[in-house]
Amino acid sequence: MLALNRRITLAARPTGLPKESDFLLATAPVPAPGPGEVLVRSLYLSVDPYMRGRMNEARSYADPVAIGAVMGGGVVGVVEESNSPAFAKGDFAMGDLGWQEYAAVAARAVRKVDPALAPITTSLGVLGMPGLTAYFGLLEIGQPKAGETVVVSGAAGAVGSLVGQIAKIVGCRAVGIAGTQAKCDYITGELGFDAAFDYRTTPDYHASLKELCPRGVDVYFDNVGGVISDAVFRLINTRARVAVCGQIAEYNLERPQPGPRWLTTLLVRQARVEGFLVFQFAAKYAEGLRRMAAWLREGKLKYAEDIAVGIENAPAAFIGMLQGRNTGKQLVKIAEL
Amino acid sequence: MLALNRRITLAARPTGLPKESDFLLATAPVPAPGPGEVLVRSLYLSVDPYMRGRMNEARSYADPVAIGAVMGGGVVGVVEESNSPAFAKGDFAMGDLGWQEYAAVAARAVRKVDPALAPITTSLGVLGMPGLTAYFGLLEIGQPKAGETVVVSGAAGAVGSLVGQIAKIVGCRAVGIAGTQAKCDYITGELGFDAAFDYRTTPDYHASLKELCPRGVDVYFDNVGGVISDAVFRLINTRARVAVCGQIAEYNLERPQPGPRWLTTLLVRQARVEGFLVFQFAAKYAEGLRRMAAWLREGKLKYAEDIAVGIENAPAAFIGMLQGRNTGKQLVKIAEL
Repeated sequence: MLALNRRITLAARPTGLPKESDFLLATAPVPAPGPGEVLVRSLYLSVDPYMRGRMNEARSYADPVAIGAVMGGGVVGVVEESNSPAFAKGDFAMGDLGWQEYAAVAARAVRKVDPALAPITTSLGVLGMPGLTAYFGLLEIGQPKAGETVVVSGAAGAVGSLVGQIAKIVGCRAVGIAGTQAKCDYITGELGFDAAFDYRTTPDYHASLKELCPRGVDVYFDNVGGVISDAVFRLINTRARVAVCGQIAEYNLERPQPGPRWLTTLLVRQARVEGFLVFQFAAKYAEGLRRMAAWLREGKLKYAEDIAVGIENAPAAFIGMLQGRNTGKQLVKIAEL
Repeated sequence: MLALNRRITLAARPTGLPKESDFLLATAPVPAPGPGEVLVRSLYLSVDPYMRGRMNEARSYADPVAIGAVMGGGVVGVVEESNSPAFAKGDFAMGDLGWQEYAAVAARAVRKVDPALAPITTSLGVLGMPGLTAYFGLLEIGQPKAGETVVVSGAAGAVGSLVGQIAKIVGCRAVGIAGTQAKCDYITGELGFDAAFDYRTTPDYHASLKELCPRGVDVYFDNVGGVISDAVFRLINTRARVAVCGQIAEYNLERPQPGPRWLTTLLVRQARVEGFLVFQFAAKYAEGLRRMAAWLREGKLKYAEDIAVGIENAPAAFIGMLQGRNTGKQLVKIAEL
């Protein structure tokens, strides 16, 4: 076994978009698992937008990462040692193990991953937190009905790409907003979205949306916020539902920008806006995973992965993801099996 | 019978706060009721914030009033002639009869009012649309639970004054925001609100709210919007509910003002904002009226009425209400019984 555990710690609290110098590649001894614990060797790390919030000093829904502490994050890896009857050496396990090569954790804090069902990376994507976020956010918060129009921002990302596909499965028109023409071509050509536009080149969001949503917007699944959301709000229908999943346009702002006030629109349209975190659906995860896995098997759900290689490249992969450089789920490959 | 029916018509579409010159006192013949119709002589007219929206050219949820047309509005009056078995001469009836002394309407478009149950003016207030708005808006949209903190803006108005009292009935802490110290004294001293502050003299809304809501805000019933709502949004708790009932601070703006963006707050707090119109609860009006009437009889609900006299004074009463000059329900007495 290697003597050293390479890990990425938080070196400084970022101002605006994080820089690589806000992170530090550190080393620590490989931990020994205690009673009831397993030692997991990381294979893939997930980098996700929510991590940006945890780099700030202020508490949001989760505690901030302390300066000098290992960055948190979902990992799928292989069990190297087990002091629990629940896991054997060689089993695959996933959990919030952080940006590091090894972690010793309580067996009950990780979930066993069956590589026969789907590639293990799906436990960090379509069959993991992003998949559950898309599933519950769209179906429980958005409550789409067949024939309605669903708009999703961040539509080529880990969550957004699934939202549009689930919208199609339940019989809706799916319209995506993404940041390159290639992403738009991917979600319409490969994933079956009905329409998409590139917000970086479209001169008038409102006009583009109006053209692509001739019957208005019934459900808006928002990963982005800011002026993109402003344009969607102008087109919401009576009794529309907005599921607020992410606000990536806001996370790196040094100074929040004001925007239009939407409460009169919500009133006149009898519309609802609701923020959610996937954790609130924890009691129903099993149902969500079962249905997502079935759709995956039936070929109704497709997914893409954007895989950086090497833990030392995790900060750059994370920063690139915040800038929208990825298509599909951004992962970092930490080690070969 | 009088030969003339005095009525207030819309003379011009207002810019900003309506002026008296935007209205015209006109006359028309007293109409003759057709088959199945009743002739109602107006006794009291209700003037309400929503009417401001109908003076604009743009369609919101209701069609605009045409230039030269009679202003719409709820009226309670006495049946002078009836061509329907549902009403006899002398019965009291209420409905949307407009700002006029007489109206001939289909019997099914008006509701009989029993003067033995409560004063007939309550059919325009606590046992009418404002009462139902408070009841369903708070209980169905706000979903308050005992022990929670409910904040209501426009707290001394027809709807807001009832919202705080219903909040108390269901076991909540009720905090009101109103526009004079006398209104604050009224809602805390007479109506049982736990606390209130005067937004016209409080230097720091956020600090005042924080002091009066030491456990944050679980339900916000918004009649006002603008900077008052901004201050409340800063203090919403996890899983808070915001019921958007009115936005009176916005209705007269010639140019909408931008404000803080709240979607990140909604996300982090897993909070919900929902606009509503009382009409969406039409199927449950009978239940609402039954419970409101019971609370009224039991002395758990109190109400105030601010009564202007004479149809010629309806425009001034309406404009004053938009400026917050009234306490409780603003009515206009059109005629003696």
